[in-house]
Amino acid sequence: MGVTTLAGIERAARAHLPREIWDFIEGGSGAERTLAANREAFSRYAFRPRTLVDVSACSPATTLLGSPLALPVGIAPMAYHRLVDPEGETATARAAGAAGALLVAGMFASRTLEDITAAATGPVWLQLYWLRERAALAALVERAEAAGISALVLTVDAPRIGRRLRDLRNGFAIPPAVRAVNLDPALMAASHRAASGSSGIADHAREQFDPSLTWADLGWLRERTRLPLVLKGVLTPEHASLAVDNGADARGGANPGGRR
Amino acid sequence: MGVTTLAGIERAARAHLPREIWDFIEGGSGAERTLAANREAFSRYAFRPRTLVDVSACSPATTLLGSPLALPVGIAPMAYHRLVDPEGETATARAAGAAGALLVAGMFASRTLEDITAAATGPVWLQLYWLRERAALAALVERAEAAGISALVLTVDAPRIGRRLRDLRNGFAIPPAVRAVNLDPALMAASHRAASGSSGIADHAREQFDPSLTWADLGWLRERTRLPLVLKGVLTPEHASLAVDNGADARGGANPGGRR
Amino acid sequence: MGVTTLAGIERAARAHLPREIWDFIEGGSGAERTLAANREAFSRYAFRPRTLVDVSACSPATTLLGSPLALPVGIAPMAYHRLVDPEGETATARAAGAAGALLVAGMFASRTLEDITAAATGPVWLQLYWLRERAALAALVERAEAAGISALVLTVDAPRIGRRLRDLRNGFAIPPAVRAVNLDPALMAASHRAASGSSGIADHAREQFDPSLTWADLGWLRERTRLPLVLKGVLTPEHASLAVDNGADARGGANPGGRR
Amino acid sequence: MGVTTLAGIERAARAHLPREIWDFIEGGSGAERTLAANREAFSRYAFRPRTLVDVSACSPATTLLGSPLALPVGIAPMAYHRLVDPEGETATARAAGAAGALLVAGMFASRTLEDITAAATGPVWLQLYWLRERAALAALVERAEAAGISALVLTVDAPRIGRRLRDLRNGFAIPPAVRAVNLDPALMAASHRAASGSSGIADHAREQFDPSLTWADLGWLRERTRLPLVLKGVLTPEHASLAVDNGADARGGANPGGRR
Repeated sequence: MGVTTLAGIERAARAHLPREIWDFIEGGSGAERTLAANREAFSRYAFRPRTLVDVSACSPATTLLGSPLALPVGIAPMAYHRLVDPEGETATARAAGAAGALLVAGMFASRTLEDITAAATGPVWLQLYWLRERAALAALVERAEAAGISALVLTVDAPRIGRRLRDLRNGFAIPPAVRAVNLDPALMAASHRAASGSSGIADHAREQFDPSLTWADLGWLRERTRLPLVLKGVLTPEHASLAVDNGADARGGANPGGRR
Repeated sequence: MGVTTLAGIERAARAHLPREIWDFIEGGSGAERTLAANREAFSRYAFRPRTLVDVSACSPATTLLGSPLALPVGIAPMAYHRLVDPEGETATARAAGAAGALLVAGMFASRTLEDITAAATGPVWLQLYWLRERAALAALVERAEAAGISALVLTVDAPRIGRRLRDLRNGFAIPPAVRAVNLDPALMAASHRAASGSSGIADHAREQFDPSLTWADLGWLRERTRLPLVLKGVLTPEHASLAVDNGADARGGANPGGRR
Repeated sequence: MGVTTLAGIERAARAHLPREIWDFIEGGSGAERTLAANREAFSRYAFRPRTLVDVSACSPATTLLGSPLALPVGIAPMAYHRLVDPEGETATARAAGAAGALLVAGMFASRTLEDITAAATGPVWLQLYWLRERAALAALVERAEAAGISALVLTVDAPRIGRRLRDLRNGFAIPPAVRAVNLDPALMAASHRAASGSSGIADHAREQFDPSLTWADLGWLRERTRLPLVLKGVLTPEHASLAVDNGADARGGANPGGRR
Repeated sequence: MGVTTLAGIERAARAHLPREIWDFIEGGSGAERTLAANREAFSRYAFRPRTLVDVSACSPATTLLGSPLALPVGIAPMAYHRLVDPEGETATARAAGAAGALLVAGMFASRTLEDITAAATGPVWLQLYWLRERAALAALVERAEAAGISALVLTVDAPRIGRRLRDLRNGFAIPPAVRAVNLDPALMAASHRAASGSSGIADHAREQFDPSLTWADLGWLRERTRLPLVLKGVLTPEHASLAVDNGADARGGANPGGRR
């Protein structure tokens, strides 16, 4: 039979992908100790079983910020799905729909928002980085609403990108055939500039992401959309409280595999 | 000399058994992390020694729910002993008797209850799964009493069987020569159906076990037998209290090697 | 240069000794998990350093139950030193004296008490097992006093010997050339009987050690000697209190390498 | 691209250096368990991230005991930089300046204080061992002030040197071409005496360091200098309080890699 575990899926992907794409996806920051600690921490979770409960008709279905889900699992926002599959995010949207799971499309999706929501049979949310170019951000939010996106997820833990040694060693940049098609190519140019010893991803973030973002700026975004707003990357209870006080509808404890 | 440790017995069994039988016995659910955690947890137990106590005539003999035991150890219910030995459960019964230990025969024993109790020189208990077919359950309980079974052990932590990857990979099913002879063959047919990528054991449980069982149903069983009733698979203190409130005589913290 | 660590001494000894002697010395009970836990526990000890203390003339010298020691370290009682060196305990006595350490001679020493104390330049204590043959015990105590032994160490955690698998596999017995010369050969005969799958050491202990010993018996020994009496193998605070209440002058938390 | 991690720098240094120099730098005391525990302890540190903080213009610059630092990191005092680079401490001084970090020169620097401070573009502190020869200590302090040293760091956790097995096995001594040029050669002679099974470093410390130093002696040093005085090697809170009571301006919890 085929693959039966997540580890098996990982092995199959590794065999299928060019080394530098694999490293971009799998690699973490620095010596990848946080990445390892991350997996180790997950392995410490255990269920506390209850017995003699009628489980003949149990269902994990729920509604999350207005989005109905058969499975309470969301596909985290990841950029450029076409790096690993020619079809890209529309394929992910169909898979999410088949599983009843949520798809959170990345700001740097390699398929248009319109194509993604058209392919989806379940809810799609959109992740955003806060660009220095606020007009581009505002335009994308407007377009997302029109395309049927159900919620926005603002990444707040990446004012700059971690030092991912694999990308630096590979001089990694996004190959020209794969593009963040929902944004002006000029805004994304740095992502495609390969250079020995540097990362196009990190260079691009340094150039385009606004590191001056504070809680006070959230109001600007809140006013521009009727969509629920989720903050991604809030890790402490005190910041979770601040998030709510500042207009967020939810905050996710992002755990990006030790990549920051 | 021969085998001196449990690990040695395991090694000898592995060398003796066909791979898929070994995997069925030794394998756990999923990535077998719970199985590993299980052994690790056992290794943390330590005795707190007392000194200068007269140990010239000490004995671990006790009586458990009316069953006298020279050794306070029970052989956990396991299905189909004939998978590993042509004689099956009657051999186990003789070994238990020689050691002064308790034998808990499995509902899916491959020898008749009557043969097992006839071969036994000590107490024998019977384990039960709660079948959708309650009449079969009632009939087996009646037969158990007549055969001299001393207590019943109801498994309550298996409304469905864990995802045992080894069985799925082996497309495991119980070989036709080994049968759960105490039950109607029609009820057991699914256990013998091998199919690539599926487990006959899991398929059978899905078909025959009643996942709607709750505390309220225990009364039905309690009324049908004068035997002590033990619940197997109660893991939390609050459920242990519930067990007693609902007519159980004992509850065992089952630890089936991470197989659920 | 030569050996610089305890591990180096161990390696050298292993290279020098016949396998079954090495196993007798190095082996622990069962799967040797306690033995491993033992070393692991030691490695967790750490010193809490104090700074700016005048250490130009510091000395660890002390007096232990009347025995003056330049080094507050005792050589634990071990049987049959001649298993590892032709000279045996008198060599150990000279080494202990050179280091300013205490030698605790074993009841099963392979040199006479008189030879050992004659070779010693520092204090020598004597360890005792409680034999069924109390007259032999009484005689040895009397002889020990006459030979200049400074204290007695009664082993209280060995009413029987642990299941040391290495010895069982080797069918180990003490070779005839090495003898517990301070006791009647008849009392020691079982130690020298080799048999496949059994341990002469364990068989001897089963035959000669009194497993009925309790706190009440200690008075018998206390009355027969003016020497300080130490109990070896008291592991819990409550038993330490009992030891003092019953006439012991000290109690040692024996840690025999997971051999019991 | 080149080296991207501290581990990579370590590997490069190992490839570049003679074995006995590498061992002197990398080795710890005894079985190097403390050295390993040290790294393990560091790996347990984690940052508690705060989000939505304006990081567009953040700076770690600070002032430490009057020394302005762009980077709040100090290069720990290490003896004889010329062991690893022909230029020695002046190269380190330039690197520290480029990074905005503090250089703490060692008492046994292999370049003159005047050369080091001349090469430095940032602050330089000087580490001291307390020599039996107090006149030499007083003279060095006076010279340090004249050379522009900004603070003194007194090592208080090395009344003697730990048993570094690598150095003992290598019979390590400082090669004649590398010298502690800020001290009278007569005071340093023992450091250069190689002998099988001994360490020139440890022998020198035993000969020249004053092990009788106590808190009371600190006043003597305090009176001789207007420079801030830091104690290196204070590990417990109670000793940190004592340090302040005795005229220290700061105390560092030295962690010399398990070398003491």
